[in-house]
Amino acid sequence: MSSDSDTVSYPADVLAAVTSRVLSGLGAPDDLSTLVAKSLVLSNLVGHDSHGFIRLIEYSGWVDAGQLNPGARPCLSWSKGSTALVDGRWGWGQAAAALGVAQAIETARENGAATVVLSRSNHVGRLGEWVDALANAGLMGLAFCNTGGAAVAPHGGVKRVMGTNPFAWSMPGPDGMNLVLDFSTAMIAAGKVVLAAMSGGEIPRGVLLDRAGRPTTRAADLDDGGALLAFGGHKGSGLSILIEVAAGLLAGTLPAAISQSGYGNGTVIIAVDVARYTAPDVVAAVSRQFADVVHASAGTGTVLLPGELEAKTRAERAVHGISVASGVQRQVAQLAGKLGIDLPEFA
Amino acid sequence: MSSDSDTVSYPADVLAAVTSRVLSGLGAPDDLSTLVAKSLVLSNLVGHDSHGFIRLIEYSGWVDAGQLNPGARPCLSWSKGSTALVDGRWGWGQAAAALGVAQAIETARENGAATVVLSRSNHVGRLGEWVDALANAGLMGLAFCNTGGAAVAPHGGVKRVMGTNPFAWSMPGPDGMNLVLDFSTAMIAAGKVVLAAMSGGEIPRGVLLDRAGRPTTRAADLDDGGALLAFGGHKGSGLSILIEVAAGLLAGTLPAAISQSGYGNGTVIIAVDVARYTAPDVVAAVSRQFADVVHASAGTGTVLLPGELEAKTRAERAVHGISVASGVQRQVAQLAGKLGIDLPEFA
Repeated sequence: MSSDSDTVSYPADVLAAVTSRVLSGLGAPDDLSTLVAKSLVLSNLVGHDSHGFIRLIEYSGWVDAGQLNPGARPCLSWSKGSTALVDGRWGWGQAAAALGVAQAIETARENGAATVVLSRSNHVGRLGEWVDALANAGLMGLAFCNTGGAAVAPHGGVKRVMGTNPFAWSMPGPDGMNLVLDFSTAMIAAGKVVLAAMSGGEIPRGVLLDRAGRPTTRAADLDDGGALLAFGGHKGSGLSILIEVAAGLLAGTLPAAISQSGYGNGTVIIAVDVARYTAPDVVAAVSRQFADVVHASAGTGTVLLPGELEAKTRAERAVHGISVASGVQRQVAQLAGKLGIDLPEFA
Repeated sequence: MSSDSDTVSYPADVLAAVTSRVLSGLGAPDDLSTLVAKSLVLSNLVGHDSHGFIRLIEYSGWVDAGQLNPGARPCLSWSKGSTALVDGRWGWGQAAAALGVAQAIETARENGAATVVLSRSNHVGRLGEWVDALANAGLMGLAFCNTGGAAVAPHGGVKRVMGTNPFAWSMPGPDGMNLVLDFSTAMIAAGKVVLAAMSGGEIPRGVLLDRAGRPTTRAADLDDGGALLAFGGHKGSGLSILIEVAAGLLAGTLPAAISQSGYGNGTVIIAVDVARYTAPDVVAAVSRQFADVVHASAGTGTVLLPGELEAKTRAERAVHGISVASGVQRQVAQLAGKLGIDLPEFA
């Protein structure tokens, strides 16, 4: 552990052990604590701290509110041909996603293509993790989910209709590094706006509308009846709408704007066996050649492939550890204290 | 037929008959002439004249160049489990797409999910048509293709790497109107820039880079070594990259930037049987309710669902006909004349 004034760096396995103990304290069985902790800390490892173990705070609130049943295990509701439904039983979404991915891999290897839907699932974490796992199995992976709670206005609209609905897509890539695309269809993460609002801050223009539908840079306008914009104009807005309707209907969560519960990640996972169409050595050679062309297209800066920044960050943080702000340590230590768990690492 | 100084309006069936005759003149068998003509004029009918029968000019050039074999019929190369490959045999791409869609519908009804890839396919037309057909069969439809010929720079880059790579997505929607999303991952269609360049015109900022990688509004810079930008920053650029690699590898067209041929639409069609997950009357009721929320989110303007503008335009043009500019009539009549076909409609 190295430290400066505001942050301390921890190895990923230390953070995973801490996270796992807190999850157990929240009521998760040991195997699920391990699974969810590993998933959360993987987000820290690849550089997406917003999806990392800080989510413990949010999850704890869900357990208190009865939205998340910490002891529930997901199960396969049914599988038929190339389709399946996983019932998350309102337990840990990462457990439902892991089961869904395993099912998709098995089905796609057998039938060439698979669609697996997660119902009654809480937050599945970072979608990129799950499509990355599909690509590791030699599959093209697609995943998208609606996110419960309308926050985003459709293109041309001024009221909240869609969630921040992420979309992820993977392909086996060059030199063992998969192409992993994973983005929110909102222009900016709601969490970032909330964070900016806490410090009374401003956000860039073109991201947020106030309650009257006027463009605003005042972050607090989001909680004050405002709405986020979708990325990419009518195209990104259209993607968000299709995710909202398709995931909401297939998973049964319903589109956020007409759902009663207002929570859950209705998630759709699609996998295609690349080897049915082209040999793995062709995939490796072509994607290597394509990566070179992409890198060479840079002017004065650098151009990265989807997933490349995450792969670089992971390699770097695996060596140097994950920096954790003292404020985050304090929050997690407080939660642990409330649960009667000793957390010497964050003392 | 009604007319003003520059345009004449024709019923869709008249334009389809004209188009079909020209296609036959180019060497297409009667059934393929009918299929391709119907597909092209459907694009005019829904308001996308850039994808309408004006493409005859381009296709004629492809026939002359030996890229398009007008007599070739697509065939099913293989189908196994939930996957299949259609060989377009470098004939009419619309015929390959129609066969692929039929195969996807049959497989998705049987196995719940299907992936069909089109290899050696010329221009498949408007992707929206094909996912709309999947939704008509009660399926969620996804389709994407790489487009041969690099025209778009990746986010942060300044050189052409990707094609204009469209992405389309459909769901059965309210009152018999499907949700149909269909967009180019380029900020703007290359055709529009070429058109602007012909008239020495300017295009909006943020769409094009010149050969030195500087933002430009001079349309002619595209042909002068420039590159289009992808829509939506790194997110749209990432979508374009995934389409380029996934479609290029699965279909065997290879990514445009490393392909020898520089043409063809490597196309991937994915279908999921919605009825496995939710009943058709729930789909109809929920999508109706969701549509109302979307429409009510408008401020002073109007907000449309993906595909709604096309459905409105189709209803309107079915009654009032399709306006054809005199310049377009002249071009098509000239082509017909060259083929020895009498075209009294455009005289």
